[in-house]
Amino acid sequence: MAKDKKVEQITDMETDFAQWYTDICRKAELVEYASVKGFTILRPYGYAIWENMQQIMDAEFKKTGHVNVAMPVLIPESLLKKEGELVNGFAPEVAWVTMGGSEELEERLAFRPTSETMFCDHWSRVLHSYRELPMLYNQWCSVIRWEKTTRPFLRSREFWWQEGHTIHETAEEAQAETEQQLNCYADFFENTLAIPVVKGRKTDKEKFAGAEATYTVECLMKDHKALQGATSHYFGDKFSRAYDVTFAGRDNKLQYPFQTSWGSTTRMIGAVIMAHGDNNGLVLPPRIAPVQVVVVPVAAHKPGVTEKAQEVLAQLKAMGIRAQGDFSDNSMGWKCAQYEMKGVPLRLELGPRDIENQVCVVVRRDNGEKTQVSLAELESAIPALLDAVQKGLYDAAKINLEEHIFPARSIEEAKALQQEHGGFIKTMWCGDEACEVKMKEEAGMSSRCIPFEQEQISECCACCGRPAKKMVYWGVAY
Amino acid sequence: MAKDKKVEQITDMETDFAQWYTDICRKAELVEYASVKGFTILRPYGYAIWENMQQIMDAEFKKTGHVNVAMPVLIPESLLKKEGELVNGFAPEVAWVTMGGSEELEERLAFRPTSETMFCDHWSRVLHSYRELPMLYNQWCSVIRWEKTTRPFLRSREFWWQEGHTIHETAEEAQAETEQQLNCYADFFENTLAIPVVKGRKTDKEKFAGAEATYTVECLMKDHKALQGATSHYFGDKFSRAYDVTFAGRDNKLQYPFQTSWGSTTRMIGAVIMAHGDNNGLVLPPRIAPVQVVVVPVAAHKPGVTEKAQEVLAQLKAMGIRAQGDFSDNSMGWKCAQYEMKGVPLRLELGPRDIENQVCVVVRRDNGEKTQVSLAELESAIPALLDAVQKGLYDAAKINLEEHIFPARSIEEAKALQQEHGGFIKTMWCGDEACEVKMKEEAGMSSRCIPFEQEQISECCACCGRPAKKMVYWGVAY
Repeated sequence: MAKDKKVEQITDMETDFAQWYTDICRKAELVEYASVKGFTILRPYGYAIWENMQQIMDAEFKKTGHVNVAMPVLIPESLLKKEGELVNGFAPEVAWVTMGGSEELEERLAFRPTSETMFCDHWSRVLHSYRELPMLYNQWCSVIRWEKTTRPFLRSREFWWQEGHTIHETAEEAQAETEQQLNCYADFFENTLAIPVVKGRKTDKEKFAGAEATYTVECLMKDHKALQGATSHYFGDKFSRAYDVTFAGRDNKLQYPFQTSWGSTTRMIGAVIMAHGDNNGLVLPPRIAPVQVVVVPVAAHKPGVTEKAQEVLAQLKAMGIRAQGDFSDNSMGWKCAQYEMKGVPLRLELGPRDIENQVCVVVRRDNGEKTQVSLAELESAIPALLDAVQKGLYDAAKINLEEHIFPARSIEEAKALQQEHGGFIKTMWCGDEACEVKMKEEAGMSSRCIPFEQEQISECCACCGRPAKKMVYWGVAY
Repeated sequence: MAKDKKVEQITDMETDFAQWYTDICRKAELVEYASVKGFTILRPYGYAIWENMQQIMDAEFKKTGHVNVAMPVLIPESLLKKEGELVNGFAPEVAWVTMGGSEELEERLAFRPTSETMFCDHWSRVLHSYRELPMLYNQWCSVIRWEKTTRPFLRSREFWWQEGHTIHETAEEAQAETEQQLNCYADFFENTLAIPVVKGRKTDKEKFAGAEATYTVECLMKDHKALQGATSHYFGDKFSRAYDVTFAGRDNKLQYPFQTSWGSTTRMIGAVIMAHGDNNGLVLPPRIAPVQVVVVPVAAHKPGVTEKAQEVLAQLKAMGIRAQGDFSDNSMGWKCAQYEMKGVPLRLELGPRDIENQVCVVVRRDNGEKTQVSLAELESAIPALLDAVQKGLYDAAKINLEEHIFPARSIEEAKALQQEHGGFIKTMWCGDEACEVKMKEEAGMSSRCIPFEQEQISECCACCGRPAKKMVYWGVAY
């Protein structure tokens, strides 16, 4: 028999970062593989993290006037094909529905890889006047992209996301929206996920299929690889024209609206794992942790201990803190290991002697620091400790980022720096795609972004030596 | 040009109920047809209603320990086929993915019509011990069923729903869960949607494919047709055995858990339309209305009117009421018609003379009643009026239900009552499926449920005259 559960050891990140990552995904019970190749299941603990992320982001989106909708999941092939660049970008990754019940469909239907086409098709039928603009839409759903190799959260055939789609009367308004939403993502990464980001524009080679411009927030993981956090796209009126979306303007003439889209996905959970996790497991920023404090009684068999622990637990909950107690008969060692694995920000321990002294011991997950807290001061101490963990995680990630940005003046130097330190390598660039390809081939790095905060490292492109136009961040990316 | 928007008239429900329904769906901007046949788009206003429903239900589910997860949307055919009854029930309606990118798939994948199979497959890999039971899972997602004829919300190829799936150590616990969730739905219909329900068990003919028992909440629309509101299923250990879901029991022997599932869908929006709507459009119960109060200034050009209306609007919002103002230059007539069409529970009008007298006029959507409210008493008056609308809608629907339940002793009598009055016809039944088929063929009614509250109308089955076992509610259903 013996199917009983244990907390198992995970691979050290220094030994095998990829295995360490997968171990956390499985052993913190975030995700499980499905019996469909390349598909995953978001388990309760993983999904609860996603729900917390959703709730915070959704509220932010609504503050700026965005509303949620639900578009059909299937897109007729002919509709998908109306905008050439988009379909060329996504066609190799589309899952096709070809049968409904027992009947062969006349036209095959794409499982949405992204929904620009559906939104445009809808707008072409419901938009009439400039008075109805802007239309600021968003939807929470899953999409499918038929990837060859997959990894939990980072790259899976189905993933969960939000996709914002908006149309505006003028190009300026649409550009402002693109920027606003990029900033919204940057704030979310920094303030909620405790992950500092580099904001910038994607090169034409790396931008979204069909977009005029793609903006990105890029972040750095503990293995010093880069991860694209979220993106915001400006389309101009390209899709409006392709899908015949028009409105009567202020001059009473038919015009094409200007469009944006912006998305963030469950890969943010992967980013959290790799930005904050350690060899004991997951480390969660308090703002998204499903359990912020776990209350663990010590010597619970002694009279009054369980009762007092229950009382403290109830008090924490009444304070609005996501708290949970563990009153099981598992060992203290098991419990510590278990909640460390699950990344619970604070562990509150309470034993007979603590109760006598009217105190408890609070252990921080991020740095192991133990603090004795008077039970009379829980109301102020616990929120302060949660803030300290949130800040501690951000500060550590910020140092990791700042210590891993290196200037280089040639491909060789860039390559050597990447091999030695990882991180972002910043170089000047002539703007030519050939040089990007060369950097990829010779140094194994893709362009991550053209940062908004530009520097003048040298006069010349690091790849070809011709006059430089922009500074680019390069990296090895997830 | 002239693509400008108007509030158009809708068909009277007495003239053509089906057209009246469709008119509301479109003109209240709840839903729009997509370019994929049989698929619909939930527009912002329709989706906001769904979000309010989700929020209330999700909180209820969580109160009783349920957690959310996300399962893959695609199910391998072989997995779907492991439980024969289920696949036979759903196979004719499944949409099949046969290609991923440019490669033909070795095994075709079903777009989930329901997810029992995926949950079982997952549990077969993660369940170990009785200590982990019960597992109380739920997911919010969309499913596809390839229906031949479709109607917005009521029957569409894709619809949005929640599907709860749970496993338990004992049959009793699973049965209690099935009942608890049915009661949860009944409470939601009655308290939130203001729709009274009849609770009961489905006959074997009408139960969910593969279930041992299906329980239902049935309600009655304004045209006196029945609508199945939500269902809760008990599976015994049938699926556990088919999918090899096992756990080590208290006796340390391998056992099969007992299973339930329960679901409710966006068709509840259809139920709300048809239970409360009138010839001026939608009528929304305040608890799910995206806008509970619309503030409309009268003679807004007069000095101070707009300012005072803005002030009142801000006050309502601060009270936690979902309020909106209309300060546009559209006519008063247009505004009244527009917010009636959209079913906003209260319209608050405020003109120069009202301001002078420190009052406003509040108009109830459900019965047109106008109340003069002192501005000093908004804080108590508005919530009270919202409660009055909520209660008024429930009471009216309750009368409609109670006045349309008729006892019958023969098929002929049942048929005549249905033709004259519609509603639920209650008769005794021998328990034989042949009699159910006969009622369908001869009186055009399906069995809606075997109500929990039984009555003894007669000794004999209304269809065959043999000794009766149960009383059944029959109806013409959506």
